[in-house]
Amino acid sequence: MGGDNGPAEVIRGVKLVLRDIAPEDRLILVGNMKLLQMLARKAGIEAHPQVEYRDAEGVILMDDKPMQAIKSKKAASMLVAMDMLKANEADAMFSSGNTKVLVAAGTLKLRPMPGADRPALASIMPHKNGHFILMDVGANPESTPEQLMHNAVMGTVYAQSALGIAKPRLGLLTVGTEEGKGGERINKAHSLLKKLEGEINYVGPVEGFDMFAGDLDVAIVDGFTGNILLKSTEAMFKMLVGMVREKLSYNPFYWGAGLALFPILQSLKNHLKADENGGAPLLGLNALVIKAHGSCNRHAVRGALRLGRTALSRQMSERLREALARANATIASPAQNPPTPAPPPAATETLATPKEGGPLP
Amino acid sequence: MGGDNGPAEVIRGVKLVLRDIAPEDRLILVGNMKLLQMLARKAGIEAHPQVEYRDAEGVILMDDKPMQAIKSKKAASMLVAMDMLKANEADAMFSSGNTKVLVAAGTLKLRPMPGADRPALASIMPHKNGHFILMDVGANPESTPEQLMHNAVMGTVYAQSALGIAKPRLGLLTVGTEEGKGGERINKAHSLLKKLEGEINYVGPVEGFDMFAGDLDVAIVDGFTGNILLKSTEAMFKMLVGMVREKLSYNPFYWGAGLALFPILQSLKNHLKADENGGAPLLGLNALVIKAHGSCNRHAVRGALRLGRTALSRQMSERLREALARANATIASPAQNPPTPAPPPAATETLATPKEGGPLP
Repeated sequence: MGGDNGPAEVIRGVKLVLRDIAPEDRLILVGNMKLLQMLARKAGIEAHPQVEYRDAEGVILMDDKPMQAIKSKKAASMLVAMDMLKANEADAMFSSGNTKVLVAAGTLKLRPMPGADRPALASIMPHKNGHFILMDVGANPESTPEQLMHNAVMGTVYAQSALGIAKPRLGLLTVGTEEGKGGERINKAHSLLKKLEGEINYVGPVEGFDMFAGDLDVAIVDGFTGNILLKSTEAMFKMLVGMVREKLSYNPFYWGAGLALFPILQSLKNHLKADENGGAPLLGLNALVIKAHGSCNRHAVRGALRLGRTALSRQMSERLREALARANATIASPAQNPPTPAPPPAATETLATPKEGGPLP
Repeated sequence: MGGDNGPAEVIRGVKLVLRDIAPEDRLILVGNMKLLQMLARKAGIEAHPQVEYRDAEGVILMDDKPMQAIKSKKAASMLVAMDMLKANEADAMFSSGNTKVLVAAGTLKLRPMPGADRPALASIMPHKNGHFILMDVGANPESTPEQLMHNAVMGTVYAQSALGIAKPRLGLLTVGTEEGKGGERINKAHSLLKKLEGEINYVGPVEGFDMFAGDLDVAIVDGFTGNILLKSTEAMFKMLVGMVREKLSYNPFYWGAGLALFPILQSLKNHLKADENGGAPLLGLNALVIKAHGSCNRHAVRGALRLGRTALSRQMSERLREALARANATIASPAQNPPTPAPPPAATETLATPKEGGPLP
């Protein structure tokens, strides 16, 4: 029921994803049941055998404060869906609602998985030749060195699953690549990551320049910087496309060029919007929560639902738990040369950004 | 002598700026004198009456560590130039060398100006309809709330001088615009900024989205996030232009469009590179230091030198000192309703990004 576009657009996304999923899958729409059934009727999926309904009362609004909303809006759709996860009545949930309430409710109701202190949002971003994972993009603004290390471990597993990269190259985002730069938090996180040599493919500290060059698969940063970075690069891209469009339309000489340019801008846009199309998982909770942009459209909803479905089929949560346990044991181990277990088996297929209309594995 | 392109490109920039400056201005080239004179001869300015030379031995390299370099390379060009500022043998200095050494040497040799704890780098960035100032972009990665407040005061003065805006709209960059979001540091800085109501035009907390929309003239953030943001948005822009170019050259159908598109990309590039063309002043030191990108070309050198010249003629340092004194007095004042002094007089002309070849005021 939340998000900027309300349930109508979510239901249009559900209609799209119904073409892709397996016959045993179920999609449960949580919210004002009359409204949802009316919207589902309009979309022609009211009586679809794979669509179910769960009544909920109220909506978490975009400016609701976490603790207050969790206490006073117990029957709101987001919190009812989360209770269903907790009660094992659902395997994963999707939300395009208030991120801060989602993170707080997830932490309180589902609890962080063993080995992780706090959940982190992982976003898929474009680089020159493909995509990389930026995390945390806002779940935990004041990440500690230990939490940055947990995020590195989880980001590695997510990149294996979502990008199909066996040994994702992981960098710690900072302001200078020499050791000792970036302050105490970065130094401590750097030491922890170096200890995990056998478990993650840590390439060292990296700078803002390095992210888009294509040499990095996972960039780890605190949720404060990550959130500002995500929103700024998105806004900057929109600005650039808008400026090109404006210049094209302003001068009739460019109209022909504009027509030719349109497919280029469109393909760039598709490449750059991978995060919106895929949604961002809240990694490190005991059940799977997928967050989509508040302003997501039906295609982004479909992408996020597919992402959730595929993560479940690939046992991503189990892999995250195992990797965290191994990493924490290595860090706690007093041995000088800790045993280096083999990295988890490489995912050869990709989880996110499946081709439009292609079947889910 | 530092920077990625060495002294040859700096001297080409000096040649360009010699066309703009007043007859009483002097440009002192600091470094290996034989090399500098040879390069100046090549550029045809060796015996120019406004060019002087100061011998220096050695270069601060891009990976030199601050304290070590300051101790062991006392005769390097950057440190000699700074000693000249300290001894009042020069009014401002330009460097495209190692930022961390420049900040550390500036802090040690020139000292922060009264009312400021630490210097901050202020970069001019593009937004939809013009430009805004982002600071700190890396001088002080772990800014305290008080330092963020100082930067807001200095950023306001700089926007008045450099962008010609009488009451620059200033925002505090964070992850959510409600009060209480973004952690303790942001909350404290927000409280301090609210107290300065009569002195700065504080619009409140802003998010990454807001910077490029054109509603903001100054964005304040810690040097860690600001540096990553600056480098990431630059890298992202280069990636986008590269992708458009590649797509255009790949498909012959687009070649005509590419020709038409070239001036658009060029004009976008000029709009977006204002920071490189202007250089970034290190605000809050007792003398004026202008930093340019390590990779700056002659045009960026010229822009940075003009920026320095104009800041001197506008008494920017004096204005910074006065504004800091007023702000600190207001913060220290126990009065519930502190007197609201009139804002400093609006600069009606702009300091940075002067038109190519136009005369300096």
